[in-house]
Amino acid sequence: MEPYCRPVQYYETDRMGIVHNSNYLRYFEEARLDHMRQSGVPYKKLEDLGIIIPQVEAFVKYGNTLQYGDMLCVRAELTEFSGVRLAYSYRITNSESGRPVAEGYTRHCFLDDVKRIPVSLKKRFPELAEQMMLFLQK
Amino acid sequence: MEPYCRPVQYYETDRMGIVHNSNYLRYFEEARLDHMRQSGVPYKKLEDLGIIIPQVEAFVKYGNTLQYGDMLCVRAELTEFSGVRLAYSYRITNSESGRPVAEGYTRHCFLDDVKRIPVSLKKRFPELAEQMMLFLQK
Amino acid sequence: MEPYCRPVQYYETDRMGIVHNSNYLRYFEEARLDHMRQSGVPYKKLEDLGIIIPQVEAFVKYGNTLQYGDMLCVRAELTEFSGVRLAYSYRITNSESGRPVAEGYTRHCFLDDVKRIPVSLKKRFPELAEQMMLFLQK
Amino acid sequence: MEPYCRPVQYYETDRMGIVHNSNYLRYFEEARLDHMRQSGVPYKKLEDLGIIIPQVEAFVKYGNTLQYGDMLCVRAELTEFSGVRLAYSYRITNSESGRPVAEGYTRHCFLDDVKRIPVSLKKRFPELAEQMMLFLQK
Repeated sequence: MEPYCRPVQYYETDRMGIVHNSNYLRYFEEARLDHMRQSGVPYKKLEDLGIIIPQVEAFVKYGNTLQYGDMLCVRAELTEFSGVRLAYSYRITNSESGRPVAEGYTRHCFLDDVKRIPVSLKKRFPELAEQMMLFLQK
Repeated sequence: MEPYCRPVQYYETDRMGIVHNSNYLRYFEEARLDHMRQSGVPYKKLEDLGIIIPQVEAFVKYGNTLQYGDMLCVRAELTEFSGVRLAYSYRITNSESGRPVAEGYTRHCFLDDVKRIPVSLKKRFPELAEQMMLFLQK
Repeated sequence: MEPYCRPVQYYETDRMGIVHNSNYLRYFEEARLDHMRQSGVPYKKLEDLGIIIPQVEAFVKYGNTLQYGDMLCVRAELTEFSGVRLAYSYRITNSESGRPVAEGYTRHCFLDDVKRIPVSLKKRFPELAEQMMLFLQK
Repeated sequence: MEPYCRPVQYYETDRMGIVHNSNYLRYFEEARLDHMRQSGVPYKKLEDLGIIIPQVEAFVKYGNTLQYGDMLCVRAELTEFSGVRLAYSYRITNSESGRPVAEGYTRHCFLDDVKRIPVSLKKRFPELAEQMMLFLQK
């Protein structure tokens, strides 16, 4: 699977001159949604089917900083998938220098968009669950 | 009506060391929603009644900069109100120095949240339109 | 010159289900910096030379909305360039439907990064000013 | 020490209708900087002395969601302080319902702003380190 790469935006920096820490959760999200798209189960499709995937936990370990002018790449992996819950891990690198920038993970659950209660993707849309599980890292 | 004041947040600054220009539209929004609340017609109430007020135009003229550590105040005024459309003007000052920071305006329309078509607040909820018009600047 | 295109990010939407109005100033910035890069005068290079280009005015007219799943394209043009001041205009379209999404402009000045006083790019770096002016729309 | 409270901003919500997950790191930051201010060591003062405190790790556990119209309160605590490194923990609650919204922590280090190398606050500014340690939770 292709890593997700894009340039740092100017407005993502803060007065320290580096990317503000909160943007890493946004990079994780961009990479996660790109991973879903590449897996053949775009998040947009799930939302259209009435399922949302809110975040229930997040962890970030920051290493080398990112600055305006840098290109970042995120490697996302699906590390857990129970049908009701799922987790992704991430590694961000500076694509020019190859230096590690950050790593972390996020945990999520499948929710019914209207009732806002947990649902099993395996039960409700087994073929989509199958498709996602093809990309589960062992 | 009380101006809307709050401190600059660290994450609102960019690598120039000043508040990023896009945040001024967010300050305008905060002040506009606070103005509605003080007018007795909270935006939340309108949304609960199925009406949203998207932005159709915005203008900002930037003056003195804002930095982390500054307190900002926004004076919002309702300058137009036709029942279908409305406009607000804004003046942002640095509350300690009193220096002008920015001014601008935003224009909006009333939309039915479900159908996403324009509605007249005057026709649908005349008492709320009356209440808002009490604060219309002549 | 190539338009600047990218997908809408999930975190750019608000509870109306559409891209929040403040992000349009960020789209303008992304397109402006991309325009400078394509013009042969990357903003990063100017900053390294001690020159920053803060925004002094901005205008946005919002048309059709953008939603998660949409791809946006911005056509930026350099419309004014006096050596001390410059202005860009922008047209955002939905790249799949081709529908117009927004248009607007921003005005800027050249500042000395340390002294924070206006400078003439024409006087300080005439060859860079020449290069930028090649892309000035008449 | 007083908790840090403020209303949810409209632009902090996403198309799920709830506050976007990345904003929780911003809430943590707001509460951390407010904690430093209440401790008598405002972050601005440290920056003026040439010291910055970048984030090296962050963890968030999300519980009940926040929506536009909610008021949030964050209780921040200084949980570690070695002179070179420090950590804060956070509990966010919905101030009206009292319901827990999120908890987490962030870890940081003291850096020399110019050289961008770790420094010991205890060695460089012992009186400020003393002051901060008065608020260290045992």
